[in-house]
Amino acid sequence: MGSFFGQVFRVATFGESHGGGVGVVVDGCPPHLPLAETDIQVDLDRRRPGQSAIVTPRQESDRCEILSGVFEGKTLGTPIALLVRNQDARSQDYQEMATKFRPSHADATYQAKYGIRNWQGGGRASARETIGRVAAGAIAKKILHQVAHTEVLAYVQRVRNLEAQIDIGTVTAAQIEANILRCPDAAVAAQAIAEIEQARREGNSLGGVVECVIRSVPVGLGDPVFEKLEAELARAMMSLPASKGFEVGSGFAGTYLTGREHNDEFYLEGDRLRTRTNRSGGIQGGISNGEDIVFRVAFKPTATILQPQNTVSVAGEETTLRARGRHDPCVLPRAVPMVEAMAALVLCDRYLYQQTVRVLG
Amino acid sequence: MGSFFGQVFRVATFGESHGGGVGVVVDGCPPHLPLAETDIQVDLDRRRPGQSAIVTPRQESDRCEILSGVFEGKTLGTPIALLVRNQDARSQDYQEMATKFRPSHADATYQAKYGIRNWQGGGRASARETIGRVAAGAIAKKILHQVAHTEVLAYVQRVRNLEAQIDIGTVTAAQIEANILRCPDAAVAAQAIAEIEQARREGNSLGGVVECVIRSVPVGLGDPVFEKLEAELARAMMSLPASKGFEVGSGFAGTYLTGREHNDEFYLEGDRLRTRTNRSGGIQGGISNGEDIVFRVAFKPTATILQPQNTVSVAGEETTLRARGRHDPCVLPRAVPMVEAMAALVLCDRYLYQQTVRVLG
Amino acid sequence: MGSFFGQVFRVATFGESHGGGVGVVVDGCPPHLPLAETDIQVDLDRRRPGQSAIVTPRQESDRCEILSGVFEGKTLGTPIALLVRNQDARSQDYQEMATKFRPSHADATYQAKYGIRNWQGGGRASARETIGRVAAGAIAKKILHQVAHTEVLAYVQRVRNLEAQIDIGTVTAAQIEANILRCPDAAVAAQAIAEIEQARREGNSLGGVVECVIRSVPVGLGDPVFEKLEAELARAMMSLPASKGFEVGSGFAGTYLTGREHNDEFYLEGDRLRTRTNRSGGIQGGISNGEDIVFRVAFKPTATILQPQNTVSVAGEETTLRARGRHDPCVLPRAVPMVEAMAALVLCDRYLYQQTVRVLG
Amino acid sequence: MGSFFGQVFRVATFGESHGGGVGVVVDGCPPHLPLAETDIQVDLDRRRPGQSAIVTPRQESDRCEILSGVFEGKTLGTPIALLVRNQDARSQDYQEMATKFRPSHADATYQAKYGIRNWQGGGRASARETIGRVAAGAIAKKILHQVAHTEVLAYVQRVRNLEAQIDIGTVTAAQIEANILRCPDAAVAAQAIAEIEQARREGNSLGGVVECVIRSVPVGLGDPVFEKLEAELARAMMSLPASKGFEVGSGFAGTYLTGREHNDEFYLEGDRLRTRTNRSGGIQGGISNGEDIVFRVAFKPTATILQPQNTVSVAGEETTLRARGRHDPCVLPRAVPMVEAMAALVLCDRYLYQQTVRVLG
Repeated sequence: MGSFFGQVFRVATFGESHGGGVGVVVDGCPPHLPLAETDIQVDLDRRRPGQSAIVTPRQESDRCEILSGVFEGKTLGTPIALLVRNQDARSQDYQEMATKFRPSHADATYQAKYGIRNWQGGGRASARETIGRVAAGAIAKKILHQVAHTEVLAYVQRVRNLEAQIDIGTVTAAQIEANILRCPDAAVAAQAIAEIEQARREGNSLGGVVECVIRSVPVGLGDPVFEKLEAELARAMMSLPASKGFEVGSGFAGTYLTGREHNDEFYLEGDRLRTRTNRSGGIQGGISNGEDIVFRVAFKPTATILQPQNTVSVAGEETTLRARGRHDPCVLPRAVPMVEAMAALVLCDRYLYQQTVRVLG
Repeated sequence: MGSFFGQVFRVATFGESHGGGVGVVVDGCPPHLPLAETDIQVDLDRRRPGQSAIVTPRQESDRCEILSGVFEGKTLGTPIALLVRNQDARSQDYQEMATKFRPSHADATYQAKYGIRNWQGGGRASARETIGRVAAGAIAKKILHQVAHTEVLAYVQRVRNLEAQIDIGTVTAAQIEANILRCPDAAVAAQAIAEIEQARREGNSLGGVVECVIRSVPVGLGDPVFEKLEAELARAMMSLPASKGFEVGSGFAGTYLTGREHNDEFYLEGDRLRTRTNRSGGIQGGISNGEDIVFRVAFKPTATILQPQNTVSVAGEETTLRARGRHDPCVLPRAVPMVEAMAALVLCDRYLYQQTVRVLG
Repeated sequence: MGSFFGQVFRVATFGESHGGGVGVVVDGCPPHLPLAETDIQVDLDRRRPGQSAIVTPRQESDRCEILSGVFEGKTLGTPIALLVRNQDARSQDYQEMATKFRPSHADATYQAKYGIRNWQGGGRASARETIGRVAAGAIAKKILHQVAHTEVLAYVQRVRNLEAQIDIGTVTAAQIEANILRCPDAAVAAQAIAEIEQARREGNSLGGVVECVIRSVPVGLGDPVFEKLEAELARAMMSLPASKGFEVGSGFAGTYLTGREHNDEFYLEGDRLRTRTNRSGGIQGGISNGEDIVFRVAFKPTATILQPQNTVSVAGEETTLRARGRHDPCVLPRAVPMVEAMAALVLCDRYLYQQTVRVLG
Repeated sequence: MGSFFGQVFRVATFGESHGGGVGVVVDGCPPHLPLAETDIQVDLDRRRPGQSAIVTPRQESDRCEILSGVFEGKTLGTPIALLVRNQDARSQDYQEMATKFRPSHADATYQAKYGIRNWQGGGRASARETIGRVAAGAIAKKILHQVAHTEVLAYVQRVRNLEAQIDIGTVTAAQIEANILRCPDAAVAAQAIAEIEQARREGNSLGGVVECVIRSVPVGLGDPVFEKLEAELARAMMSLPASKGFEVGSGFAGTYLTGREHNDEFYLEGDRLRTRTNRSGGIQGGISNGEDIVFRVAFKPTATILQPQNTVSVAGEETTLRARGRHDPCVLPRAVPMVEAMAALVLCDRYLYQQTVRVLG
């Protein structure tokens, strides 16, 4: 249990950092979606290691193969299996981590829970696990675009204390991809990139915030009470490696306002019910209201750093660890496509489920 | 879909604000748990309206009846059904809301999603819906206590900008229940209560933050990758009415630190693996590490306020609404038992599931 | 786990033979369905004890109450909770069964599995448990009728070796309800009723077969590979008390034919694709083809008989049991509405799910 | 939806007859199980085409690759992905079936449901789909053997009207594998093999019955009311290609008996509660009682035959089809490992779930 996600648009991911490969099975994808490996590769390339100077230099081309579910360029309605082979595995870098728990990493808890773990490259707790998510998310994005022109855009909103100024209403994919940080504020991006490079040189790491805006959202997605849209999004985001917090719309800052200040008044734009402000973040009562969905995810500084740290060995002795290997000094640029993918998975699942709701009137 | 929660310890809640009643069916509760209505009533009383001067004055005794699943004082392993009748319903207070959408409430989205809604008292979007959750949570708490002496404590940590000083390591249930706000900092509580009363007089509302600490947590709970413990907790909390944000451990604040500053170093306390700090909030790699679980939930100011607001009618005309009825000027004191209940549901579900993991070695 | 059923049209049943009551929560019922207690009562009356001379004489009016999910006569899309109180409970009849396991009943396995059981009236293993199923099934039937004029008809096809001659293509509800056995072959029914009465006088019991035909089935229901329509129906039927076998279309008899003899050739009836024979029972490749769905369920003779039987006591000693209490000498007449209900639950669930499949082309 | 199975021991199968490959992801497999590809290959070899003169001659080695979830020869508790490449695909054999629906096959219903299908080799409706099931079942078998020495044995019990005489209590795997039919009655097997070869020469096909006996079953498996053990088994078996019926224990034949004749009296064998007869088939009240589980599955004669048949084209015209390609004249010998696999999946899932039930007493 744990590697299956979704109720109608269901995914099952698999794979560890080292081993035969990683991937995903997508069940419940509607038939008739044009789909090729290139549709998926574009997001895998945004996620892959070695893509820039501020991410891990591990060399993985992350080429995906569609094993099933597509025929003559279209989905069949049968499960789509996607496979990415592992290539540039260097187990020897992890020898010390085989015997010593990295602080704030998953090493110790995996050992405690399972009594066994693949210590090579972090095993299942490696960011490579997200390949299956990003691949499935690419399919979900395509469906959402096809049915409602829905657009899912995430970007780096803050690195440590360097906060970008971003116009949520107009930010574009091109602006996001304009720099290797995926932060559409060029000035802040430049400064943050410099700080990340500095952190890397010091064997240290940085954290920050990814923001996501979703446009052209169909009204009515989300299912009270336990499957409210923000609940599903929160679960999805908090399942990403290194995430520590989630907020939607006004979030934590909104709690400083009174109800009078906070409420989003309704008005009409032609026939369409709109809100003048969007502190709700596009979701009211757990259901999308058609305004942009806006949420933020906090990512901690990468746990694996290259400075010596006090820790305990698997054998049960206090010791010091100086991690080796190739690690991200900041997860944010690669977290961007992960956030988009998980958001797309949630929305696609809710969109499909919503088809079952209004069959009578 | 939407009203079922959990994978092994499963609950199905039902009920609207007005109508025959509200309640829950709990399936998967282990046999041999001593259980009486009084076990459940204690938390329902902490949740119920009319309990103090700073919550809604609606008079509901919220007496629960166990309909099934218990025999001679013990659970049978069969589904436990719990029913609470609705009593003090005043539909007439909601006549205007039948025709006008309350800003930032669920009225408009329910109408859009379902094409029909019970406008009386908010229908399914009413806080009464949480009765079933709190009742089920009381059972989950009892199981957790019995198997691991686990203790789930939530409290009001901030009202608007009034932040309590609380020692997470030592705070007690008695301190929490010492005032009607459920804020264990007496001075801040007194000030906040005055502000809430002031907001009520003005027909306004306030928000804030509830913090939750869980002690004596078994190591190993939580299931990578999608059912990480923090993901399940986030989903649970973000499914509560009025919640806008969730963070675990260091949360959003932790993103201002470097990895060097943020990591929780390991040490040994006798045979037990401990961390010197707890920025992880008791969860690493999605799995509990035995340290206290600590998280926070942001609750917005109550949407239903008694001041006139611009809005749109169901008939599709811009209009003004001046809500009536009995509402909470601040949801926080009643949110405390809801947060505890949802946390207990998640942990109990994960605890039971964990029994399936280590059957071989 | 175990008391939840369905993926989109989800039900959670609860209740034991003795205790506060039995019932069901239905989640995922579409809004806008006209629904009143009378819609449900009609099937509960067909299921209830005391309805005729050949069923258990326990007196239960089985009046159901809708607790939630319906507003001004229509479903809301929120969970529908239905409650039936237990009335005519006679615990004293079961005192001996508290200490001795009834052969071929659930007493011993419940004791082994749970270490505790409600021995009064069979507890959760009582046929009263099916009240929630029949109530939910009545809602499912109404939806199916509304969306596709689908008609679900079950009837007694055989009692022991008395086999009815029934024209599957024309049998009507009125014919089925024309006698207390619910067997639309009057002559066989009369004979079988006499045999059942004889069995009752002897403290013995009889079994047989219920057949079910479903007409006006939408094409396309059922989801390969694990949720094939016949698989879901089989699971549903084999979950009914006393069922021992399931077959669809040609069933076991069809295995005596060659492929040449067995295949259903296609032809066109206007634009509609039809089959000349229906050995497929309306399902091909796990998916409904629009022909009548036809299946049969074997029900064993009731386990609780009033003749002395060798058995073992809870305390672990060989002994003799002479059961008391009020029992069905033959479950078939009351199984008829149960079969219809479970079939309706399966079809409704698949119908709703099918809405998610063809959203793109 | 449709390709996921199980609640704790969960599998997701994928793949069509032609295309990149077929396989399965297994989630919830406990850690510490020794596992190698050879463990799985043994059952894949029993399932594969070309293994004997009475199955399809398609040449597939069906070599499986473990992609994830195993480390240094042991399972990790993470998802196990298994892949088998398709090799001997001859699309040209299926050109006619691309345009004409095979009678009693899945062609027409897939077309109706999805509006698209992979007509090559039957696509997802091909028996190749069961490779993932058999692979996952091999793992489940190994777990069951390790935790309880449980043994799952299936065999051909009848081909058309040729019924084998088999001693359920003593039949062995070696006896089953002693002939290419997998029928442990040598005389009947020889006769049946001759009839199958005759049917093949005629372009015809035969059906029959597979029986399964499961020994050393832990007491307490199965979860009333909807997840009764026989319900889960029935669903599993009726999800297999070509299955038309399921019965457990006395099955349909048992309905000819009275309760007095049918009941299984209890006695003590030392401390162990036993039944003198086993008409219950090892399951009472939906829960295993420790006696051998015995059930039978009816398989129809293969739908694809090589004689001309009347049918309808995809374009909507009545026509005649003379199928080509390589097909099984009788599915039974290859159905044997499929039945075992599905039974093992059900039992393993229930065994793991059962660990959550008795945590308190």
